[in-house]
Amino acid sequence: MRFKVSNGEVSTKVRTFLARKAYNIRVSSLRMTTAAGSGHPTTCLSAADITSVLFFHTMRYNPRNYEDPDNDRFILSKGHASPLLYAAWKEVGLLTDDDLLTYRNIDSNLEGHPTARFPYVEAATGSLGMGLSIGVGEALNARLDGADYRTFVLLGDSELAEGSVWEAVQIAAHYNLENLVAVVDCNRLGQSTPTLYGHDLERYCSIFEAFGWRVLTVDGHDIDQLVDAFDLVEVGDGRPVVVIAKTLKGFGLEQAEDREGFHGKVFKPDELDVVLAKLAERFSEVSSAESVQEWHPRIPEQRAHTMACNVASVHISSPAYTHGEMIATRKAYGHALAALGNICETVVALDAEVKNSTFAEIFEAAHPNRFFQCFIAEQNMVSMGVGLARRGKVPFISTFGAFFTRAHDQIRMAAIGQSELRLVGSHVGVSIGQDGPSQMALEDIALMRALPDSIVLYPSDAVSTHKLMEQMVRYDTGVSYMRTTRAATPVLYDNDESFPVGECKVVRESDKDVVCVVGAGITLHEALKAHELLSAGSDPVAISVIDLYSAKRDVYAS
Amino acid sequence: MRFKVSNGEVSTKVRTFLARKAYNIRVSSLRMTTAAGSGHPTTCLSAADITSVLFFHTMRYNPRNYEDPDNDRFILSKGHASPLLYAAWKEVGLLTDDDLLTYRNIDSNLEGHPTARFPYVEAATGSLGMGLSIGVGEALNARLDGADYRTFVLLGDSELAEGSVWEAVQIAAHYNLENLVAVVDCNRLGQSTPTLYGHDLERYCSIFEAFGWRVLTVDGHDIDQLVDAFDLVEVGDGRPVVVIAKTLKGFGLEQAEDREGFHGKVFKPDELDVVLAKLAERFSEVSSAESVQEWHPRIPEQRAHTMACNVASVHISSPAYTHGEMIATRKAYGHALAALGNICETVVALDAEVKNSTFAEIFEAAHPNRFFQCFIAEQNMVSMGVGLARRGKVPFISTFGAFFTRAHDQIRMAAIGQSELRLVGSHVGVSIGQDGPSQMALEDIALMRALPDSIVLYPSDAVSTHKLMEQMVRYDTGVSYMRTTRAATPVLYDNDESFPVGECKVVRESDKDVVCVVGAGITLHEALKAHELLSAGSDPVAISVIDLYSAKRDVYAS
Repeated sequence: MRFKVSNGEVSTKVRTFLARKAYNIRVSSLRMTTAAGSGHPTTCLSAADITSVLFFHTMRYNPRNYEDPDNDRFILSKGHASPLLYAAWKEVGLLTDDDLLTYRNIDSNLEGHPTARFPYVEAATGSLGMGLSIGVGEALNARLDGADYRTFVLLGDSELAEGSVWEAVQIAAHYNLENLVAVVDCNRLGQSTPTLYGHDLERYCSIFEAFGWRVLTVDGHDIDQLVDAFDLVEVGDGRPVVVIAKTLKGFGLEQAEDREGFHGKVFKPDELDVVLAKLAERFSEVSSAESVQEWHPRIPEQRAHTMACNVASVHISSPAYTHGEMIATRKAYGHALAALGNICETVVALDAEVKNSTFAEIFEAAHPNRFFQCFIAEQNMVSMGVGLARRGKVPFISTFGAFFTRAHDQIRMAAIGQSELRLVGSHVGVSIGQDGPSQMALEDIALMRALPDSIVLYPSDAVSTHKLMEQMVRYDTGVSYMRTTRAATPVLYDNDESFPVGECKVVRESDKDVVCVVGAGITLHEALKAHELLSAGSDPVAISVIDLYSAKRDVYAS
Repeated sequence: MRFKVSNGEVSTKVRTFLARKAYNIRVSSLRMTTAAGSGHPTTCLSAADITSVLFFHTMRYNPRNYEDPDNDRFILSKGHASPLLYAAWKEVGLLTDDDLLTYRNIDSNLEGHPTARFPYVEAATGSLGMGLSIGVGEALNARLDGADYRTFVLLGDSELAEGSVWEAVQIAAHYNLENLVAVVDCNRLGQSTPTLYGHDLERYCSIFEAFGWRVLTVDGHDIDQLVDAFDLVEVGDGRPVVVIAKTLKGFGLEQAEDREGFHGKVFKPDELDVVLAKLAERFSEVSSAESVQEWHPRIPEQRAHTMACNVASVHISSPAYTHGEMIATRKAYGHALAALGNICETVVALDAEVKNSTFAEIFEAAHPNRFFQCFIAEQNMVSMGVGLARRGKVPFISTFGAFFTRAHDQIRMAAIGQSELRLVGSHVGVSIGQDGPSQMALEDIALMRALPDSIVLYPSDAVSTHKLMEQMVRYDTGVSYMRTTRAATPVLYDNDESFPVGECKVVRESDKDVVCVVGAGITLHEALKAHELLSAGSDPVAISVIDLYSAKRDVYAS
């Protein structure tokens, strides 16, 4: 049943307090964007009331400890409305007006679209349609930990056109994430044109309900309705919740309100005083009061928490492979991951419906409660991983290497967010043969190498796979990627060999070498065959062979 | 209103004929996969009846001329069911049994997942969830041309988890594509696990209806129901249509039917005879008859068609820029595209809701009927372009360069499909500044360069942008990509300068040069500033400067 009208129980005091906070957020958003000379003020004006109610009425969190694991979480999916986020935290008391006025400066943490440089953020956003997936990860984390915190995701209506949103919608319903609340700032206007459905709220309701969500609609500028709607969702009914808020872009400024042509347009410094005066007049009921009410934050109850795994010193039990044993590196990955799960409670695995190809199923068999089926929706899977990682889990995300291209934007944003994303792509290279190019990872090295702070690993045998898994767990600076091979390949290395990131192995050499062949993964085995062929016979040619198991490490990475 | 039961009007003769074709397709699918030793026979068995009805009852096409522009089109979105496609064309008479038995051989056009090597295909598929978007492009093309052909897309149910499918669903409804028919082979089972919604057909109905589609549900193994459903959609009602067919994976083979563990499993050569005997027994009503009925293909009416543009010799009217004039290359792109639209009726433009940033809006203003707003759904936009290009259009697809990462998989598949995709990414590099890294195209060169047969262009001024647009139109071998800059930069070149793909310009040189600096786009201007600074003063340093406007061309490309 959809929500229609307020129940009239919001006191004038609460309403005034929240309206004042919303007004302050509007003023800050206008000041920040004018000072910066760029940004998206009208996008903030539409969602200021929602933000106020979430931050100062609905969410339970300790304002003195952002990282408190019991805090409710807020994800700004519409990242171009970043002033909202900064202004809200200023109202909380964690930033000053001076901080706000550094917005978009090159040395400021208050970037045009939020990044990991801002400490009070769950993820870098700004490429649209990812926030809900990150929220799915965070909500699932709460479920895993038996934690009470809820995850709120503020989305724009334009970004609902991104398919990744519907992937998240499907999966959230599948996992019955009643602790996930999406809020759609339905302001009708995109950057250059009205959105697909404009203010047709019924359309949005039907779609979300069809996907199995609980839907509430409100006037997004009516504090009472917002308060009542969010109060209603305190008690879950097993379904994820979406609050669809009908808003006006540029709300509060007559010249811009609900009008096209104002996206990403800022007011000039000499216009600002007039604009702010008009805003004060428009919100005269609250703008004149100096301080309306003291804020009593809803501090969450403290709970016991699972100890995090100290990834920096993880030691997976040693491998026990024998030289020449034929085993695919993808299978060695599955075994290493399952072994890692034994010693590290925070390790989880995400699969895009190919667990029997990647051998993530070995982990699933050992740790079924920490294995998450994400179905064939790689974008959502990767961003879910970002959410899980942000809340302390160590997710390993695997699919065919080729299909990580599907989530390139999500992986790129994870890198910008300095997320410790651990990706393992199977079926790399042409050696998979018959299935054809669509199934072969051929572009994945280019994709993963181009990311800031990434490492790319490509083991050739089971021992190096096992040992490099350990390196991946320990790598906490950014995205790590491992490629695995479909075919079984012989074990080349001793079980006690070490494989430092950024190095390589010289596996064949002599002082007569005329050529050096560099291989990795399955191509190393081809290089070794070439070595054997060339060194035999009456006219031997000596070649050295290098195993480039570590295909990228930034020079400034540790 | 959903479709419930057959109206009982299908004659025994027609039913038997279609059932026999379905049986033949099943037999071929089993033979092919066994001969190849790999493939997905059970995936074919679930959709054989659908395929038979589409190919031998519903679709209007000239079996002697695949490229007839009036033919109805069939897109196999579930590309791993490729034997279906090859078997159907064998039944049409365009392939032989011997051809089929080359399936998955390295020198066969009958690849494991369809590619452009197979002539009777609309697009390479095999990465899931793209077919419907390609279909949207083809259906939109029919609309543009005033053509009567319809586009049929066969999807698996697993792939509905891909968000790109819902992007296509949204856009198809937005454009009222009643000439687009999606058919979902709802066989309940994915590769390793049941699908999200299993056989809950009501769920699928609700979702598609909520998005504005016309929905029919059928028993996908009941020929009568299939015939009646497809007959019903002969008359459109303004909405795109989805036929949701409840099927069983492995249908017809008791040991595999509706059972997990049979995805991608083929029968061994020594099992095949028994399997085929069982199949013959199961379909004894049709399997014994030698030839059931002569087929009378539904040849479409011939219509007049727009003349295609001869892209190889396109000459866009010369640019008229002046040296030193400040103009952003993104704006020069918009002007060149509009000019191109004047001389080439088949040029269309696709935008992901950033037309005022990319300046695709200049084209829209000049040619509104050939401009398509795709909203913030880059994956669907790119695959729509594949569909439009396959049907003879010359689509230019533009968004922020950063957001092409969203469609990396679609672009990769377009390259495999040898699609003439023309992509233009704006706001490249760090020079966009304040908006931050999420908006900057930094990985796009890696993405685009790694594609087979791609070219990558990066003009530094308006003249080179204009001239390179001409090169892009002429490039018909694969994906072409141009990067454009947000900031205005001075015009450097004469209007009659030429810019061959694969070359570069030496813009500064002397016989005293001690360093050569290579720039492109906006970095060329920085290099020129360096040249000026270094060549001035009492201790000048001479450097040469190269404009690498063509950042990639495969050596084997023309």
